[in-house]
Amino acid sequence: MGPGPCNPYPEALEALARPLLGHLDPEFLQLLDETCDRLRTVFRTTNARTLPISGTGSAGMEAAFVNTVSDGDVVVVGVNGLFGERMCDVAARCGAEVVRVDSPWGEPVDPGPVLEAARRHSAKVIAVVHAETSTGACSDVAALGAGKGDALLLVDCVTSLGGIPVEIDAWGVDIAYAGTQKCLGVPPGLAPLTIGERAWERRVVRPRSWYLDLGMIGEYTGSARKYHHTAPVGMIASLHAGLGAILEEGTLAVQARHAECGHALQGGLEAMGLDLFAAAGSRLPELTTVRVPDGVDSAVVRKTLLERYSLEIGGGVGQYATSVWRIGCMGHTARWRNVTLVLAALQEILGR
Amino acid sequence: MGPGPCNPYPEALEALARPLLGHLDPEFLQLLDETCDRLRTVFRTTNARTLPISGTGSAGMEAAFVNTVSDGDVVVVGVNGLFGERMCDVAARCGAEVVRVDSPWGEPVDPGPVLEAARRHSAKVIAVVHAETSTGACSDVAALGAGKGDALLLVDCVTSLGGIPVEIDAWGVDIAYAGTQKCLGVPPGLAPLTIGERAWERRVVRPRSWYLDLGMIGEYTGSARKYHHTAPVGMIASLHAGLGAILEEGTLAVQARHAECGHALQGGLEAMGLDLFAAAGSRLPELTTVRVPDGVDSAVVRKTLLERYSLEIGGGVGQYATSVWRIGCMGHTARWRNVTLVLAALQEILGR
Repeated sequence: MGPGPCNPYPEALEALARPLLGHLDPEFLQLLDETCDRLRTVFRTTNARTLPISGTGSAGMEAAFVNTVSDGDVVVVGVNGLFGERMCDVAARCGAEVVRVDSPWGEPVDPGPVLEAARRHSAKVIAVVHAETSTGACSDVAALGAGKGDALLLVDCVTSLGGIPVEIDAWGVDIAYAGTQKCLGVPPGLAPLTIGERAWERRVVRPRSWYLDLGMIGEYTGSARKYHHTAPVGMIASLHAGLGAILEEGTLAVQARHAECGHALQGGLEAMGLDLFAAAGSRLPELTTVRVPDGVDSAVVRKTLLERYSLEIGGGVGQYATSVWRIGCMGHTARWRNVTLVLAALQEILGR
Repeated sequence: MGPGPCNPYPEALEALARPLLGHLDPEFLQLLDETCDRLRTVFRTTNARTLPISGTGSAGMEAAFVNTVSDGDVVVVGVNGLFGERMCDVAARCGAEVVRVDSPWGEPVDPGPVLEAARRHSAKVIAVVHAETSTGACSDVAALGAGKGDALLLVDCVTSLGGIPVEIDAWGVDIAYAGTQKCLGVPPGLAPLTIGERAWERRVVRPRSWYLDLGMIGEYTGSARKYHHTAPVGMIASLHAGLGAILEEGTLAVQARHAECGHALQGGLEAMGLDLFAAAGSRLPELTTVRVPDGVDSAVVRKTLLERYSLEIGGGVGQYATSVWRIGCMGHTARWRNVTLVLAALQEILGR
């Protein structure tokens, strides 16, 4: 129950243990096509270029920036946590002139100042994290899409995709990426990515990264089937299976399960007298942040949870490293029994 | 029996199906440390910075260049196949001034002209592919190490590591990378990488790639344990298990098995009257290249092998796409029974 990786769906683990197919085997290519179709369904997009990047979520972030940002392009980043800060670093390494617009950690990104900065600086890209894994806060992507003007909207969906509504097309998102190990319920190792026509037409034709060059990758995942790099076939089979489990349960039912677990967990923590960290109204159900009570040693509690209950929860990030806990209810971990167990275990340990 | 991925060792697949550990779980961190130790053993190095990169072999290539090459640095690349060509592309995107020294496809890289070019251009980096997956030819890395002078020696060991002798320290290699899906017998998804002190001291402090920044990655794999990106924990467990299988059998015994299978395969193909493609004296045992006989349709033979015998072999690359086959004996696939089967199947199909 950390901030990810979650427990994978059994189907996703079983797929990894199957005999390996070649990366140009017709059977595998069909599985890859189906995986991209399933990703379009969960991303809620018709983007032809929707595919798994061969790296973890941070590789997805780098792929998004390196394919859209050239030297001197202005990128406005709405920052309300560690992953927004990471966006600034990644964009700068791609040659961007980064304009950073901060909101307090734990709060959502405020769309007004971000859009204002984008207008003032004629930004090529507006970038924001939908669900901040470092704080548990959810930001309003639709508002940014509505006001983006000529800019491209780049969104980090690592901790949102699969767990809460994500509407790539309806919200006007031009490029987005996720990770497999959060609400998709698959082991870490792939970064689902989707890019729309508008971003595609304005992409960097020869990006600084060969490995993450979407033009070249697209010639393999598309109908040309031109070899680029050896696809991580086992991981793609696992993603295919995990997405299959989600679609069988139903994307809305999966989101409802995440919501139910998250709200029960947050209610239970408050009933114990603990203070939630993320701002009310912006709390992610899949990732709950709670303040460590005064006088309690965060690390001792986490160690006890791990050793006595086999429960992993996360510490905080940055200045909140020892004063906040992060508890995930993601993917296969988003089960009522886990919520009940972590609440009961915390009650025992904290004596509440 | 393609040019990779091979069939993984059963231990490597079983590890993937185990319950997933968190990327900061003490049990996982111990497994990560052991994995790095095992990589040091197979790389034959004492380099402290020996670790798995979270991407496929091509991510290892990009990591090697992006951490050693700055704008305007001269990189001399010995090219004798597709992966040497790829090095030129990757290095150029890192800002290098690339000096390309060609040898014919199927031949090894000729060390003399490469070293001469490096001296003439005061190269920062000399780069070469040890085992060219596109042609089946093996190049002499030790000769380049002996003559490298002030340059750093960067070596692609994707198709050599585990299958034939690799001596990072004894040969004077400064930075090298591999892939998991070849002779290491693990599914694709990780790129083992090792970098020595000499290259470390001359590295790029803030490389263009955030995801592949060895300074930041090293703070996680080293004792600081500082979070960088979520490690692909399942794949690392699989690599740990695959390396365990290799060390249990013995690295020399594994190489002997690759040699025996490769030589038997090459002898059998010649006995059938077929012509081997790679130059005599430079033939890789783990990857055999053979000319498609006149009048034979390469694709039909490959399709028949796949459908009737469940055997995958590879086509050729570039101008040799339809005139050369590539047959792998790598990792768990390097078994006598597979050699016997592919030879018998080819005899049946070709009527020889």
